[in-house]
Amino acid sequence: MKKFQILVIGNNDNGCTPELEKLAYETGAEVAKSNSILITGGLGGVMKAASRGAKENNGLTVGIIPQNDMSEANEFCDVVIPSGIGLMRDFLNALSADGVIAIGGGSGTLSEICASYMYSKPIVVLKNSGGTSTKFADQYLDHRKNVKIGADTPKHAMEILLEQIKH
Amino acid sequence: MKKFQILVIGNNDNGCTPELEKLAYETGAEVAKSNSILITGGLGGVMKAASRGAKENNGLTVGIIPQNDMSEANEFCDVVIPSGIGLMRDFLNALSADGVIAIGGGSGTLSEICASYMYSKPIVVLKNSGGTSTKFADQYLDHRKNVKIGADTPKHAMEILLEQIKH
Amino acid sequence: MKKFQILVIGNNDNGCTPELEKLAYETGAEVAKSNSILITGGLGGVMKAASRGAKENNGLTVGIIPQNDMSEANEFCDVVIPSGIGLMRDFLNALSADGVIAIGGGSGTLSEICASYMYSKPIVVLKNSGGTSTKFADQYLDHRKNVKIGADTPKHAMEILLEQIKH
Amino acid sequence: MKKFQILVIGNNDNGCTPELEKLAYETGAEVAKSNSILITGGLGGVMKAASRGAKENNGLTVGIIPQNDMSEANEFCDVVIPSGIGLMRDFLNALSADGVIAIGGGSGTLSEICASYMYSKPIVVLKNSGGTSTKFADQYLDHRKNVKIGADTPKHAMEILLEQIKH
Repeated sequence: MKKFQILVIGNNDNGCTPELEKLAYETGAEVAKSNSILITGGLGGVMKAASRGAKENNGLTVGIIPQNDMSEANEFCDVVIPSGIGLMRDFLNALSADGVIAIGGGSGTLSEICASYMYSKPIVVLKNSGGTSTKFADQYLDHRKNVKIGADTPKHAMEILLEQIKH
Repeated sequence: MKKFQILVIGNNDNGCTPELEKLAYETGAEVAKSNSILITGGLGGVMKAASRGAKENNGLTVGIIPQNDMSEANEFCDVVIPSGIGLMRDFLNALSADGVIAIGGGSGTLSEICASYMYSKPIVVLKNSGGTSTKFADQYLDHRKNVKIGADTPKHAMEILLEQIKH
Repeated sequence: MKKFQILVIGNNDNGCTPELEKLAYETGAEVAKSNSILITGGLGGVMKAASRGAKENNGLTVGIIPQNDMSEANEFCDVVIPSGIGLMRDFLNALSADGVIAIGGGSGTLSEICASYMYSKPIVVLKNSGGTSTKFADQYLDHRKNVKIGADTPKHAMEILLEQIKH
Repeated sequence: MKKFQILVIGNNDNGCTPELEKLAYETGAEVAKSNSILITGGLGGVMKAASRGAKENNGLTVGIIPQNDMSEANEFCDVVIPSGIGLMRDFLNALSADGVIAIGGGSGTLSEICASYMYSKPIVVLKNSGGTSTKFADQYLDHRKNVKIGADTPKHAMEILLEQIKH
């Protein structure tokens, strides 16, 4: 049976703290442990930490990057999709997801949440990860639809998300 | 000299009130009066009302739609770009703008604001137009960068925007 | 009534001869005289000459360019769509066309012909313009479908194309 | 070290003969045996047969499809990228390739060859597979650049391609 594809989104290098990296690493690890495929934007910060977490737990990782050139992806991506469409690749990421976990993030993460929301993908936001994701998702998206706030830990986020996806 | 291209964004048919339509119509009219080209997403609600406002004031209107088929655009678009890329066309709209005016709107409008923000386009949000635009832009984007809140009227919005663009 | 949008494709600066430029200029002029809107890829060579031909005959011109930045378009484009999707914009061009005229060209032009063919757009190839267009279209696309070979002049090409579009 | 990503292109269901399917299956198998990742357009015909060939030889398969919905991909894709950009996904495929093998094909395959050519990806065309690929590539692309004609077998194609990629 086809494995689930879980998108993890959040800060790129700028704005990514050691705390967010730790959360991202653990989230990537949980994705791998659940036998799912990790999808990220393939660059730095949360994307890189999550990919490392998945790889170090025998997971499969896919990086969908804005550039034309595969070599721009971080070294923890097994498969690289160099989209060549710049920031629009946020929407490709969302389309490629069975479910989404958001960790912190700024305007890019927010546009990915919007895309995921419009494509009706289940979304879980890591409580306490701050950034735009939490604030925005908490206030402006309709939780009755497909956004779930309040996972305390990456493990919890993955549990909530899988339940939503299988539903 | 090349005319400015002004993107007007906001609610599609669902969620578009007569008040928003009136604001959109007046905004389209102001875009035309300033001798600028109106860019919209080419569909209903705010997009259609703004296009009508521009057309009835001798403006030139461009609709960039998600679909493959030109006939999906509203009848007030002189030029139709049927992008065939679905919701990603929000980013095409943002790239095609010298400046952006937001009127109300939901998750789609929000993703266009994010895109415009990331591409460093001047953005003006119509005060009192409600919706995601006002709330979001007010709280989460950096006003020192390229977002201006607080235009009271379409005329005022256009004035602020042109000043930003020429700057 | 909505004006027709006619896409003119062919060589960029490299490979564009004075003969091709002359053909392109005349083709742009014919598009304008037919009261249609000219769509091009917005860059040099055939695209620029066609746009100039349309502008000098009071036509409206749209340039859909690969880059993010409007200023990369040639100065004869009234409307610029900076697609930010690189070479994929060949497909945007094809989608934006009611009909297509091909003048010479290489691999880029060929991909635009393929796209136009797949989207079932009427295509006319200028006989004697050489390049990939003529050779390819002559041999590999199904003329019974939507490709017409054999316009001797830009005026003739426009006549054939309009007949196809209205059909 | 990052595995190579090999794109296999050719006919969709319509126009795909048992002979082409056999060639595609063997090509997918060779991609897997070389420890490379198979990229395809994720639909039927050559794409499906190649994916099955790779899966039955323990390979990893990626399908990049035109649609928004993952379930449109064939069942032999481990990873599915539902691009939502329609036929433009041919360019995504080309960008995602370290090298390309073409088997038969029509106008879609031809646009992928054009894209691969413009992105300077090494391309090998299977001799005797017929279709547009052979005819076109033989006559119109510059063999000194990145197109190699004349692989007699899938095994041979993979050898030529790997040599080109490593070069």
